[in-house]
Amino acid sequence: MQKGTFEFGHADGGVTAPAGFLTAGVSAGLKRSGKRDVCVIAAAAPCSAAGVFTTSATAAPPVLVSREHLSAGTLCAVVVNAGNANACTGEPGLAHARTMADVAAAALGCAAGEIAVCSTGVIGVPLPIDRVAAGISAAVEALDSGSDDDAAEAIMTTDTFPKQLAVTVSAEGRTFTIGGMAKGSGMIQPNMATMLAFITTDAPLAPTACDAMLRSAVARSFNRITVDSDTSTNDTCILMASGVEGGAALVPGSAPYEAVAAAIAEVATALAQMVVRDGEGATKFVTITVRGAVSERDAELAAFAIANSPLMKCALFGEDANWGRVAMALGKSGAHIDPAAFEIVFAGIVMCRNGTATGFDEEEAARALSEPEVEILVDLHVGEGEATVWTCDLSYDYVRINGDYRS
Amino acid sequence: MQKGTFEFGHADGGVTAPAGFLTAGVSAGLKRSGKRDVCVIAAAAPCSAAGVFTTSATAAPPVLVSREHLSAGTLCAVVVNAGNANACTGEPGLAHARTMADVAAAALGCAAGEIAVCSTGVIGVPLPIDRVAAGISAAVEALDSGSDDDAAEAIMTTDTFPKQLAVTVSAEGRTFTIGGMAKGSGMIQPNMATMLAFITTDAPLAPTACDAMLRSAVARSFNRITVDSDTSTNDTCILMASGVEGGAALVPGSAPYEAVAAAIAEVATALAQMVVRDGEGATKFVTITVRGAVSERDAELAAFAIANSPLMKCALFGEDANWGRVAMALGKSGAHIDPAAFEIVFAGIVMCRNGTATGFDEEEAARALSEPEVEILVDLHVGEGEATVWTCDLSYDYVRINGDYRS
Repeated sequence: MQKGTFEFGHADGGVTAPAGFLTAGVSAGLKRSGKRDVCVIAAAAPCSAAGVFTTSATAAPPVLVSREHLSAGTLCAVVVNAGNANACTGEPGLAHARTMADVAAAALGCAAGEIAVCSTGVIGVPLPIDRVAAGISAAVEALDSGSDDDAAEAIMTTDTFPKQLAVTVSAEGRTFTIGGMAKGSGMIQPNMATMLAFITTDAPLAPTACDAMLRSAVARSFNRITVDSDTSTNDTCILMASGVEGGAALVPGSAPYEAVAAAIAEVATALAQMVVRDGEGATKFVTITVRGAVSERDAELAAFAIANSPLMKCALFGEDANWGRVAMALGKSGAHIDPAAFEIVFAGIVMCRNGTATGFDEEEAARALSEPEVEILVDLHVGEGEATVWTCDLSYDYVRINGDYRS
Repeated sequence: MQKGTFEFGHADGGVTAPAGFLTAGVSAGLKRSGKRDVCVIAAAAPCSAAGVFTTSATAAPPVLVSREHLSAGTLCAVVVNAGNANACTGEPGLAHARTMADVAAAALGCAAGEIAVCSTGVIGVPLPIDRVAAGISAAVEALDSGSDDDAAEAIMTTDTFPKQLAVTVSAEGRTFTIGGMAKGSGMIQPNMATMLAFITTDAPLAPTACDAMLRSAVARSFNRITVDSDTSTNDTCILMASGVEGGAALVPGSAPYEAVAAAIAEVATALAQMVVRDGEGATKFVTITVRGAVSERDAELAAFAIANSPLMKCALFGEDANWGRVAMALGKSGAHIDPAAFEIVFAGIVMCRNGTATGFDEEEAARALSEPEVEILVDLHVGEGEATVWTCDLSYDYVRINGDYRS
């Protein structure tokens, strides 16, 4: 499949699709359901890596530890537990996050500083570290290249389906594989990264290349989705490059470098969209594009104002072509708006032009909005800036799920 | 009743409790229900006035006209229609807003520039100006001092109860009366004013005093409430001072001036709280106080981040003591946070201290959260800034009401 200037292909599985990685997902008794809740993704040898993390001022201990360990740009493995976020857990929580790295390092025979740790689940409950440690040891024992499904399941919380994919990309006769998995369903307006996402590749990349490619990919994928405008304390996205495909580190500007960067962005965008499709209580997948803004930042502001408006989200759930709420959201967005210029198109139907109602066929609109996927297009007609944001509707089930999450 | 340094008292009714004002509310056929939908509040003679309006970039035509007419600081009357916001209606909408002022001016025998106009209801539908004009004429005919209930009803949209009150305040042997009414239930995070609120007084105030007192009152009342974080295109709050109580205009710094300012703030706060109590689908009235912030602005940022978090609002609906979501909201708020310092108290029960779980009695918390009024107190322990914000929970009914508002 041609995407831009590169040849993309499909690959099976997720994080172990690229050569040089093994994974496992086991049950350590953190989820009451008894489902898998501890996962390890290990590289065959220390490899180049980069991470982006939540910008939350209340970032959780595992985020602090992973940020520190990733500063050297090398990882042997990522260990993850679900069912407990190890957030707002103070000094004991920080000690527990370090213990997770220590246990994994001992089992894998590498340095603790080469382990990234992630936790996801309820905030403010002490981590049952003994169970987590036992789970990490068991997961390291179980590592293989056929456990991608187990791993993707082990990182889930309120997710209703596992999220993973793998692609290949070819350039100058070389083919690279990129795999990834993610979790996330609520508390989703990532700011630097989603809840948790892990991307692997067999391409030979220097740590600086990992960092540049990951930041660029995240900016227009995980940082362009919202379920409920809430930003988690634990958001983490990590890229690991094994280099097993061989050769020298890819050079910025070369075709293979650009190909791998494009494929990483592709995987990040696909994973981000899966998170929105699995948004808590979501019945609609909504793509909001704002163009004609004075800048890309302004377009992003306007698109997020629409995507995060509870009134807009309820109207989408009700399949109601209430474009006036888009006009309201534009008005409060902070983006530069010419009230006599903007145009609003719902599912291909023009509803407002020059800031004024055009009139439309209600039956045609109702039919279009009854589809599971809806596109909202806004043209501000004041510049060239454009941004696309993905979101979901706000349903009774969102309220039900979040009215009593802890119990 | 002593409030601060002034003696407050209760008065009956709303906007006509202060001498010098008449009102009426009539049915003009804009609401399908046939309920009252056009209101006029008239001063016996041109009087000092001030207004604050939505900061929305898509402000509706009536807002543009009222802002223009209030620039001189004098009003004879305010005319209001409910059932149609006259927003996103372009040049015809602007002409209709001017016609509303013209019709009222002709009936009342004053200049059109002395009339403020307000509209509230659905966005993007042409205003049926003939019906509105007939309604204004009928309302002017019906003006009296016993129609406050009719007027408060005529400005309602999704409101479930009319919102009005009146108080007296005494200083230096003089007694002033302040009355007010408001409407609003959804699309509520006013930014400069609520949906619609009208405050009257018999105190002798210069237009500059009206403006200063209104802005000060609004800053900590209507600008401190949120139902759903959405800002209307039509928000308007108007103060009119008839001066019928007599004497020269009150001088800033004098006891009567400060007394009237305090009473106006009191009325504004009471009306703002009524709007939140009537929040769409609300089952809880929630007071969120953040103290110990580095500034009042930071405290406000943190309090609004908590108040607007859909996850927090759902937890309140579910009566779930999920304080971790408060920690999450603090983290994303942009306020300066010391993650090892903050304290979170739900309904008097300490849940988190030094940024870490304290442990609490779940049964006691469940009992406290089952009350219709809940207080959340956060002490950031990094400064002296404090702000209180009022909000409500997010219930199934909010989704139901807003899933199909237009039909």
